[in-house]
Amino acid sequence: MNPSTRYDILCQHRRKAATFSSVGRLLSWDQETYMPHAGGPGRSDQQAALAEISHKAATDPRIGELLAACESDQSLTGDPKTERNLREMRRDFDLATKLPTELVAELAKVGSQAQEVWKDARANNDFKAFAPWLERMMALTRRKAECYGVPQGGELYDALLDEYEPGATAREISAIFGPLRQRLSNLINEISEAKKKVPTKILTSKIPADKQHAFGLFVLEAMGFDLKAGRLDVTTHPFCEGLAPGDTRLTTRYRDEKFTDALYGTMHEMGHGLYEQGLPKDKHFGEPLADSISLGIHESQSRMWENFVGRSRAFWVWALPHARKRLGGALAKATVDQLYAAVNTANPSYIRVEADEATYNLHVMLRFEIERGLIAGDIRTKDVPKLWNKRFEDLFGIKVPDDRRGCLQDVHWSFGLIGYFPTYTLGNLYAAQFWEKINKDLAKFAGPSTNGNGKHSAAANTTAAEKLIAKGDFAPLKAWLNKNIHTHGKRYRAGELCEKITGKPLSADPLMRHLEGKLRPIYGI
Amino acid sequence: MNPSTRYDILCQHRRKAATFSSVGRLLSWDQETYMPHAGGPGRSDQQAALAEISHKAATDPRIGELLAACESDQSLTGDPKTERNLREMRRDFDLATKLPTELVAELAKVGSQAQEVWKDARANNDFKAFAPWLERMMALTRRKAECYGVPQGGELYDALLDEYEPGATAREISAIFGPLRQRLSNLINEISEAKKKVPTKILTSKIPADKQHAFGLFVLEAMGFDLKAGRLDVTTHPFCEGLAPGDTRLTTRYRDEKFTDALYGTMHEMGHGLYEQGLPKDKHFGEPLADSISLGIHESQSRMWENFVGRSRAFWVWALPHARKRLGGALAKATVDQLYAAVNTANPSYIRVEADEATYNLHVMLRFEIERGLIAGDIRTKDVPKLWNKRFEDLFGIKVPDDRRGCLQDVHWSFGLIGYFPTYTLGNLYAAQFWEKINKDLAKFAGPSTNGNGKHSAAANTTAAEKLIAKGDFAPLKAWLNKNIHTHGKRYRAGELCEKITGKPLSADPLMRHLEGKLRPIYGI
Repeated sequence: MNPSTRYDILCQHRRKAATFSSVGRLLSWDQETYMPHAGGPGRSDQQAALAEISHKAATDPRIGELLAACESDQSLTGDPKTERNLREMRRDFDLATKLPTELVAELAKVGSQAQEVWKDARANNDFKAFAPWLERMMALTRRKAECYGVPQGGELYDALLDEYEPGATAREISAIFGPLRQRLSNLINEISEAKKKVPTKILTSKIPADKQHAFGLFVLEAMGFDLKAGRLDVTTHPFCEGLAPGDTRLTTRYRDEKFTDALYGTMHEMGHGLYEQGLPKDKHFGEPLADSISLGIHESQSRMWENFVGRSRAFWVWALPHARKRLGGALAKATVDQLYAAVNTANPSYIRVEADEATYNLHVMLRFEIERGLIAGDIRTKDVPKLWNKRFEDLFGIKVPDDRRGCLQDVHWSFGLIGYFPTYTLGNLYAAQFWEKINKDLAKFAGPSTNGNGKHSAAANTTAAEKLIAKGDFAPLKAWLNKNIHTHGKRYRAGELCEKITGKPLSADPLMRHLEGKLRPIYGI
Repeated sequence: MNPSTRYDILCQHRRKAATFSSVGRLLSWDQETYMPHAGGPGRSDQQAALAEISHKAATDPRIGELLAACESDQSLTGDPKTERNLREMRRDFDLATKLPTELVAELAKVGSQAQEVWKDARANNDFKAFAPWLERMMALTRRKAECYGVPQGGELYDALLDEYEPGATAREISAIFGPLRQRLSNLINEISEAKKKVPTKILTSKIPADKQHAFGLFVLEAMGFDLKAGRLDVTTHPFCEGLAPGDTRLTTRYRDEKFTDALYGTMHEMGHGLYEQGLPKDKHFGEPLADSISLGIHESQSRMWENFVGRSRAFWVWALPHARKRLGGALAKATVDQLYAAVNTANPSYIRVEADEATYNLHVMLRFEIERGLIAGDIRTKDVPKLWNKRFEDLFGIKVPDDRRGCLQDVHWSFGLIGYFPTYTLGNLYAAQFWEKINKDLAKFAGPSTNGNGKHSAAANTTAAEKLIAKGDFAPLKAWLNKNIHTHGKRYRAGELCEKITGKPLSADPLMRHLEGKLRPIYGI
């Protein structure tokens, strides 16, 4: 067999395995969106069967043979893209073959059941009902981590983290999170003590879900999300699923009395969705070259659209006239500056997914600490509520009223997503660092400023991206992301990409510059 | 291995194969309902991958070994349910393993091409373009029938029929269809010559889809369809998918200017859905004991709710006040008798899927005659239009204007669905025969009549089921169907079940009594 034929067959095997995984993702999407309640047990069986098949396909010994042959073939290793493709396939194959099939099936099945239990437990504020399932999932997850193996000089948690953020370690993350926590806490304290209060009443105008949905679709379309290759639906916990080539599905949730929840939720998921739509799946589906780099980089895309685009003043310059037209009378008297300030308040609150841009990272750090302790065995599952509530008060200065608004609020742990939370804050950090570079690169597209209030003095501080956003011209930003991030797939690791784009390793500075630069003027501090 | 362990493992194998098939059904459902347009090619890959896995699981040689061992084990063959379960598993396994892979592939490939040719041929009214493809599909279908094998004393067509209606034969069906055809033709002739014309304007009031949808859900709930274990969505072609245990999905389509299309479509699919929900899938999913008997029996359930319940006068006695409330002003002045008559008009027409309850069966018989002749080699494909048009005129008394409204109207033959059409009329026949027995058995539940017009004279002719329907009390009917039909799964063949329930073999008499009893008074003949 000649080398390129062998390489093609290897890619075909990967494509088939990816096809089975994509079916598993449809099962999950359907479970969250449209599956009737009584379908739960049957769905568990389907998930388990699919997980088993996917795992079998991904661990097919034939892949190992083909990989070994390709790796030792000098005619293939010359091309850097092929070489990286092979290196990442090797990583995936090794990870996948380390897990016994029965463990994969059990994780899928118990996870799907635990998720149903969690739903009820959260609704009923009943941690005790969920505790034994959390315990089972932690035990299974530790078994998984042990199968992966602890990296040299690392800890068990790193083995889990590596699945979502290849190459990252708890220690490195701690080193960035430490100063971030300190500077964030200081900023939040200053804001809490500030005399100026930002009115947010404008956000609580009652707007029916169907109008919000139509406006959400309008925003998606304006920003370049392809609705012929995607959808927007409603779920309890919003998500984006890059389901298959040409099929990327977003979800959101509507609260009549706070339209910005769904709006920013939708823009967040759209950031993920644009990444999925920007990956070269037509050509490379199933190969690392059509896969996203890491959850951190994925989150950098969602956070960028949600916070750096959506919470800019420029966004409201563009969006307000459309919102007035499409969301009804509630916003008739709202001004750009009112909305800009209102969507940028920073206050300690209980629910991560509703937290503001600044305190959000404190929520993440709380979860990172606890899950790291659970895996290390330093924390017992039954102690989670007590510990959560204590640490929460330390970080936020307020008391958790109940577990529904405390340790039961997130779905992640119910199906064994450990090592996942820190990637949210990594996303914010990467987004901030990319954003500074984007503003330099987009300067050539940005014309004179239109900041909507006619005062030219303010325009001097407007960045290139903001100038484009104010005009509703999102195409240069989307094109920049497509070209510099999306199209590469897994060609670079997160750290490499960050250095390639920004010339520097990841740091807390750009994010703190962004938050301080925005929040200090708003709060007059 | 002890016998019951072996039997359990056999059932587990079946359950697994059924689980894969159920995932394939979700892929189809999603494709028809929510999949974005660009997801098409990816979906084909997913379907192909799932089909391969399902087929492998259903033809796993291990099933053959376990079956053989169980069949020869006297400790298992004593129990009639187990015995029937094994017998039907044998049948399924033999059917699945009798077709050579290359024939399956060729049927799929040529069928998919022929279907595309058929689409154009229908659009262009060009039978000649379709003829060579029909010829190829008939040849392949005959080869399929030969692989299945002709049953003793039967004909080649029986082998095809057996796939959809196990155990049925063309000769038996002919023996019932013969008198049905004669009596139906007479009835249609009488109606055509009747002076009384039934006004149908009331049905064309404009009613928006969202109101129709809400009313459809109301009717489903009232009739006992469990919406916690099912859904109702919108598709171009309505269907019911018994997707998995606890998950039965119905679809319908809305026409603003004819609300009864969706209403009866929904009730039709609900009949299928109640059957699916009534099968003992929790205990026996994947085994014949949790499978439906045949397409004919399945159709008897859909036709019963659509026609025997939904097109009764009693239905409108119950439904009209609700419809007035929920469908808006359009029905404000409608009366029960107007609606009852309007939904029961009978007129010769060209298109099967738009035909009324009575003439529908003539459409089916025409197709049965011709496809039987095609398989036997008595009819040549090129003669189909001429023959169709001649027989159509004999049956309906009107001339077919073109092949588009004649032999080119249905998709079935283009992908080799031969032996499928007669099950539609078998469904009507079974429904009518069951219905007479149901009326006897439900007498004890039915109180005094409330026929909605306050005249007690009319009440004397009201059957037990009609009394319950007029009160909106559908529970006894649903319970009867659950107990006498659904819960048995494939324990009985269709003919056996009919004899068990009604004490008689299937005949044309009950259906003709039903149609004549309804249509003569409406048309005053």
